[in-house]
Amino acid sequence: MNAYQQLEARKKRTSALGNAMGILEWDQQTMMPEGAAPARASVLAELSVWMHEMETGPELSDLIAAAEADADQLNEWQRANLREMRHEFIHANAMPAELVEKIVLAESESEMAWRTARPNNDWKGLAPKLEVLFTLKREEAAIKSGLMGVSPYEAMIDQYDPGRREAQVDQIFGDLEQFLPGFVQEVMEKQASAPQALIPNGPFPTEKQEALSKAVMKIFGFPFERGRLDTAHHPFSGGADGDIRITTRYEEDDFMKSLMAVIHETGHALYEDGRPAEWLGQPVGNSRGMTLHESQSLLLEMQASRSEEFIRFLVPTIKRCLDGEGPAWEADNILRIYRKVEPGLIRVYADEVTYPLHVILRYKLEKAIIANEIAIDDLPGAWNELMEKLLGIRPKDDIDGVMQDVHWPAGLFGYFPTYSLGALTSAQIFTAAQRDNSDILPGLGRGDCTPLFSWLDQHIRSKGCLYMPDELIEKATGSALDTAAFKASIKARYLD
Amino acid sequence: MNAYQQLEARKKRTSALGNAMGILEWDQQTMMPEGAAPARASVLAELSVWMHEMETGPELSDLIAAAEADADQLNEWQRANLREMRHEFIHANAMPAELVEKIVLAESESEMAWRTARPNNDWKGLAPKLEVLFTLKREEAAIKSGLMGVSPYEAMIDQYDPGRREAQVDQIFGDLEQFLPGFVQEVMEKQASAPQALIPNGPFPTEKQEALSKAVMKIFGFPFERGRLDTAHHPFSGGADGDIRITTRYEEDDFMKSLMAVIHETGHALYEDGRPAEWLGQPVGNSRGMTLHESQSLLLEMQASRSEEFIRFLVPTIKRCLDGEGPAWEADNILRIYRKVEPGLIRVYADEVTYPLHVILRYKLEKAIIANEIAIDDLPGAWNELMEKLLGIRPKDDIDGVMQDVHWPAGLFGYFPTYSLGALTSAQIFTAAQRDNSDILPGLGRGDCTPLFSWLDQHIRSKGCLYMPDELIEKATGSALDTAAFKASIKARYLD
Repeated sequence: MNAYQQLEARKKRTSALGNAMGILEWDQQTMMPEGAAPARASVLAELSVWMHEMETGPELSDLIAAAEADADQLNEWQRANLREMRHEFIHANAMPAELVEKIVLAESESEMAWRTARPNNDWKGLAPKLEVLFTLKREEAAIKSGLMGVSPYEAMIDQYDPGRREAQVDQIFGDLEQFLPGFVQEVMEKQASAPQALIPNGPFPTEKQEALSKAVMKIFGFPFERGRLDTAHHPFSGGADGDIRITTRYEEDDFMKSLMAVIHETGHALYEDGRPAEWLGQPVGNSRGMTLHESQSLLLEMQASRSEEFIRFLVPTIKRCLDGEGPAWEADNILRIYRKVEPGLIRVYADEVTYPLHVILRYKLEKAIIANEIAIDDLPGAWNELMEKLLGIRPKDDIDGVMQDVHWPAGLFGYFPTYSLGALTSAQIFTAAQRDNSDILPGLGRGDCTPLFSWLDQHIRSKGCLYMPDELIEKATGSALDTAAFKASIKARYLD
Repeated sequence: MNAYQQLEARKKRTSALGNAMGILEWDQQTMMPEGAAPARASVLAELSVWMHEMETGPELSDLIAAAEADADQLNEWQRANLREMRHEFIHANAMPAELVEKIVLAESESEMAWRTARPNNDWKGLAPKLEVLFTLKREEAAIKSGLMGVSPYEAMIDQYDPGRREAQVDQIFGDLEQFLPGFVQEVMEKQASAPQALIPNGPFPTEKQEALSKAVMKIFGFPFERGRLDTAHHPFSGGADGDIRITTRYEEDDFMKSLMAVIHETGHALYEDGRPAEWLGQPVGNSRGMTLHESQSLLLEMQASRSEEFIRFLVPTIKRCLDGEGPAWEADNILRIYRKVEPGLIRVYADEVTYPLHVILRYKLEKAIIANEIAIDDLPGAWNELMEKLLGIRPKDDIDGVMQDVHWPAGLFGYFPTYSLGALTSAQIFTAAQRDNSDILPGLGRGDCTPLFSWLDQHIRSKGCLYMPDELIEKATGSALDTAAFKASIKARYLD
């Protein structure tokens, strides 16, 4: 075997381990008896260390270098595969083992502290743990920045959205920061003078909501022969190659949350399912980072499912599954509920129009944290001021303010931007797809996703990691990622 | 780290992988969507190869030798752990990789052939595949025999029941072969003149049977906080360390099969659960081979659950869960059903009295196969003759004759004897336990398993692989394994 072939064999092996861990993690959230948690944690920790060893080490470095020296003998997919191996190696191998260990420990301690501090509004209890973690993350960012020749914050984003540049995000978020606050006002004024949404009365029993979830997943062509729907504390999409598993959580007094969560996770799962079969198990067969992944879930949740065509098609199914009758169940009313725009304190409950403002707030603060430009004690105040500036509301406490997300206590920096970059990408993709095939919206009106999905298969899903994220977006849509399609799509949805 | 410590670290790692594979295999039988089967098979194959590499190789051999050289510095448990590592290494490392690969392939081909040949009574379709496999298994037996200094057939049993000797099994099975046929006649005559059993009328809905299963598992103290019950095509006990998962299959017209399957698998699971916590992940923390494992399942299924005391306690629970009323639901009648003795063609449906005769038949034939003393074409006839000699009945076809079990097509030689050695062991253990604690049977009559389980915890479960199987049996019961307790127990149950 030459160097490249040895690398493929090695990736096949770590991918098998990764697939096993994927099922273990799914099991942990859905099936595992609670008392097995310590044993499971110890198994996953041991396997993670093993995985890390397989992804690092001098012999791997030598193999990659040798394969790169002979890269002219590789085809386009193999070259992309090698590029992805190099990228994975840089991130896995960047830091000394002791630093990795310190970070894992600090993340675990600060996340645990967050779990008790948040309900008690106890920022002071959390801050010292965060300070330790932030210092270590700055160290990580500095090391990776040096290795990769990018800014420290870019080295952080790069883990989730490879190749993303700060200047581009600054420009895009700057544009939205200018545009959205006024737009939100405009939409709210329009909605204030329109009929108010009626809320369908529950309870909506879990079994009936589950039947609705499965009916909707079938409309989206979810392949139940190689996938599952289960319940868990939080909705997620997981599983393994060729075995896509999503979860949701049902609230008996509100079916709409779970319905949209199911559609969102179905989008993630179908992206996983549509990756190039012949490259599964190799890095180039992976999905193309978090911005693209989020674009695929939001494309179903925010674009397709909030279209008038699809809602009119879907409402009879909703009514049938939930025994709904009366004016609250009419398509116009359901549309009104799903399109309600209103600034709120909590990101995860935000509508698609105010959502980017939540992300911009976090983006500004986490850049300052990584640049060491803000003291830990100033963080809650800075949060509240930005919230007031961007969304016009101010949290009464840190529970709904600086402590609302798990991301920073869990050591996730550079992750937040991908939510909104994903939303922009989904709008740009949906617009391009409709330009290429005028039957996409009429198809959704018939409950036929084939026109949309054929386009997605061809331009996004089947491409795996053949291109870098921005290259993929540009090839698929004809232009670089920008805010135009997103702005046009929300204008059409909320003002026309 | 010294050599022994390095071995422990290595075992911790392979044990984590083994735990992961345990959950994957459970998932495959219970949760996995069918279309994910090819992807799952490929993941498990890759991980198995990896596991095999971890369990072989010259550096492991060197480590074991080095640790053995310093064995005087180890305590009793560590020494036993090292002995088990050597044992695992011998089996894993005995054969050249090409032979292992050939055997895996031949096993897979002959098992697949068996799946189509059996329903079609097509022995000729299966025989050529078996012949290839049997030749390879003889090669395996010869190699291991040479390495271990035991007979070729002993090298086969040794995989499942370490240290077991052919002469001992010959003697034990010879004794049963003398005793059982006459005893079966005697019991049948006695039962013919007694009231005939009434069969409770179904259907018994799955949900009610499941409630009964869980009620019975609770009586046996099954720790649901770290275990599960699910349905699968076949009952089994699996999962991972600290996470015991059993399955059953419900037939709506017969609740008794599933009930006893659940009790059987509960016995297996409680044995796993009772292993020494501080040695989990190390070979010495494993269960003590198939004979002991089967003794623990049969102890619950055949000894405890077929005792009059326990059945009288259990019947009200059965009636409550299944809405049973009338004479068919009386304890005396349920006892009659569970104690019915009658020779049949199929091993898995056999009662405990005729069961060993099925095993003796297979034992004789598989010894002849490994010794190359029987031609493949003579196997069906030899089967039918032995069946007639031992059980007085003759199969009409090979479906219920030589092709009824998957074991030989799957390459399992030396496995069958452990079923009956396990039955003998369970009787011997149950007798010894009652001798040590006279409250065991009265306890079962109160639904209180503590007296029995305290004894089992102390003498069997907590010992892991500290001793060799026969040593463990002798220490626990005070005498070497023989047929006396088994014969006495079936005499008491069926003739008194």
